Amino acid sequence: MNTYHATVTITLRKGILDVQGKTVEHALHASSFSTLTDVRIGKHVEMTVTAASEEEARAHVDAGCKALIANPIIEDYSITLHAMEAA
Amino acid sequence: MNTYHATVTITLRKGILDVQGKTVEHALHASSFSTLTDVRIGKHVEMTVTAASEEEARAHVDAGCKALIANPIIEDYSITLHAMEAA
Repeated sequence: MNTYHATVTITLRKGILDVQGKTVEHALHASSFSTLTDVRIGKHVEMTVTAASEEEARAHVDAGCKALIANPIIEDYSITLHAMEAA
Repeated sequence: MNTYHATVTITLRKGILDVQGKTVEHALHASSFSTLTDVRIGKHVEMTVTAASEEEARAHVDAGCKALIANPIIEDYSITLHAMEAA
């Protein structure tokens, strides 16, 4: 079995109102950071995956994202995998 | 003035207990996703920056992160900038 380091970036789909982002943007502008606009906030998830191949590791992470980590109705996610030292 | 797209990845510093990550990891294992371990959850922030140069844009984002977006005591952050079409 091999070990992979997976990074999942989860963002709200376009068109979904990002309340958290808007709040941070307003706070930035109130603190005179007026050059920062269009703030959108998502999640960054890192994990270790044990699998026979990179394809299998990606399938495991994808299944975990669909089931629990992301909300596919309102969120998009992308998965990046890097092989770690063989276990 | 130029426009840049900035991506900020915020992660908890090593050694800081990631309660959210542990909770997700336990839920994954309870849902039979036992190959996914060491889950750590951070934030992914995107924004548009207006500045004269990439250095200035980076300085604006960095100041915003220090002041409001990240908590430098317990979090690390990295900034990635891409130039967008000139405004």
